[in-house]
Amino acid sequence: MTILADFIKRYAPIVERELDRLLRPRAEEPAALREAMRYSALAGGKRLRPVLVFAAAEACGCPPSRVARAAAALEMIHAYSLIHDDLPAMDDDDLRRGKPTNHKVFGEAMAILAGDGLLTFAFEVLAGNAASVGLDAKSACGLIRSVSAAAGTRGMVGGQAADIEAEGLLSKRSGRRELAARLRYIHLHKTGSLITASLEAGAILAKASPGRRAALRSYGRALGLAFQIADDVLDVAGDKKKLGKKGSDRDNDKLTYASLYGLEAARKEARRLVAGAHRHLRLFGARAAVLHGLADYVIERDH
Amino acid sequence: MTILADFIKRYAPIVERELDRLLRPRAEEPAALREAMRYSALAGGKRLRPVLVFAAAEACGCPPSRVARAAAALEMIHAYSLIHDDLPAMDDDDLRRGKPTNHKVFGEAMAILAGDGLLTFAFEVLAGNAASVGLDAKSACGLIRSVSAAAGTRGMVGGQAADIEAEGLLSKRSGRRELAARLRYIHLHKTGSLITASLEAGAILAKASPGRRAALRSYGRALGLAFQIADDVLDVAGDKKKLGKKGSDRDNDKLTYASLYGLEAARKEARRLVAGAHRHLRLFGARAAVLHGLADYVIERDH
Repeated sequence: MTILADFIKRYAPIVERELDRLLRPRAEEPAALREAMRYSALAGGKRLRPVLVFAAAEACGCPPSRVARAAAALEMIHAYSLIHDDLPAMDDDDLRRGKPTNHKVFGEAMAILAGDGLLTFAFEVLAGNAASVGLDAKSACGLIRSVSAAAGTRGMVGGQAADIEAEGLLSKRSGRRELAARLRYIHLHKTGSLITASLEAGAILAKASPGRRAALRSYGRALGLAFQIADDVLDVAGDKKKLGKKGSDRDNDKLTYASLYGLEAARKEARRLVAGAHRHLRLFGARAAVLHGLADYVIERDH
Repeated sequence: MTILADFIKRYAPIVERELDRLLRPRAEEPAALREAMRYSALAGGKRLRPVLVFAAAEACGCPPSRVARAAAALEMIHAYSLIHDDLPAMDDDDLRRGKPTNHKVFGEAMAILAGDGLLTFAFEVLAGNAASVGLDAKSACGLIRSVSAAAGTRGMVGGQAADIEAEGLLSKRSGRRELAARLRYIHLHKTGSLITASLEAGAILAKASPGRRAALRSYGRALGLAFQIADDVLDVAGDKKKLGKKGSDRDNDKLTYASLYGLEAARKEARRLVAGAHRHLRLFGARAAVLHGLADYVIERDH
């Protein structure tokens, strides 16, 4: 845990500064819009995705300065997804990280636009960064394709849509196999895609070999799924106050690993996935220390 | 009008086919999400933005095949903006182009996600296209930067936020000069930015000179503003049924050129801007015939 804790302590403030700088108020923009974007992007949180960008870059021997802006861009996409997820028409959450959600403070219209603005700006930042670090055309486009595919309908947005469709499935007495497949789809896409894309962004900017990119993708897939299962377990078993979340996901109205398999089986599956994540890092040797630490953190944080 | 009409007749179907192909249903995505995206992206409309991409490419001597996908991407961004604008928290519109709006058919949650999905996919398409047409790194990133800047908080999203903030300003008896500045900002950003970006996309993909790019930007700025003013005029004076819109913009609750300056002064301003737009095309000679036709169309369509 010390290597990971040190890493986060070093890089989380770099991400915060980068976000603060990129999102500084501009005279030519509506002030409330910028304020709403800053409110959510600078609201703290684990900064998992940017940390993954830095950790993947380190594993591939790439200097952190080369990936700082891409790390901030991934965090903006994460922040936008939380703003839209919290909207009354979606999960209808009043609190996020112990603070009122974006639409509670700025109103629904501004919250929708703040999310749209963060998503759009993330691509501007990615394109600007690729140009400024002298990435070749193929890699520059590859970076943006990878992130947009992961954030879009074949990734995060698709996972969120499936999650909304799945609400109430439990009460409709769907078959257990159908529920399990649905749940896996949601977890892999809603959270997993952007986690994998963060790792891949580090690899692309490091100009890592295809083998290393594939290994980081496999690691990310296992990590993301384990992370989400652990989150389900925490929602049921964890200290709710400590996480700053209100209650569980609509208290069993939603499909979760814990509600489908039970707490113990869910914990076991998370441990199995984390063991797999460790194996995918073999290629990187000691440089992957932080990524190993992250995998352990996913299952350790609930006790 | 014949040159323009022929051009639209030739290229609008190409855009429709490209959108239909890019947005074809995929097994791995939630079906309702894809259906919601197709509903709005394939709902017809003027296809102004993609036509501008083709027209700018033609003015710069670039083959249409090189810009077809970028044209479809710009139309996806336009479609996303309409879906989000129509939401109950925003303009709360029930009809668009004579059909029920996206959230009326698919529900608010799916409409928000369909918009998010279209915006995100547009950048994936732009990055994929830049790679497939062999655009150099600087131009590839430049294309995505130009479009994202125009669609984001310094462009379209900023204009929409300003529009929402401005609601009710008229009743608050703000000064006429303040209202005029605010209105100009909204028009230039909410509609103008993406129109300019469409022209610039054609120029970037054509690898046009900086002088030509600048001329197309100036033309786009004038065209976009004239287009919006003409829209205001049409809302008041035009045949509402023919446009498939419900009433005017909340009948004078919203700030418009027509409500601020009166119909005649608004028409005059649109004509002045169109005259300027024509002048910016001098550089392109006969190749700009379609762009000249478009400028005329903006003011001709109300009589």
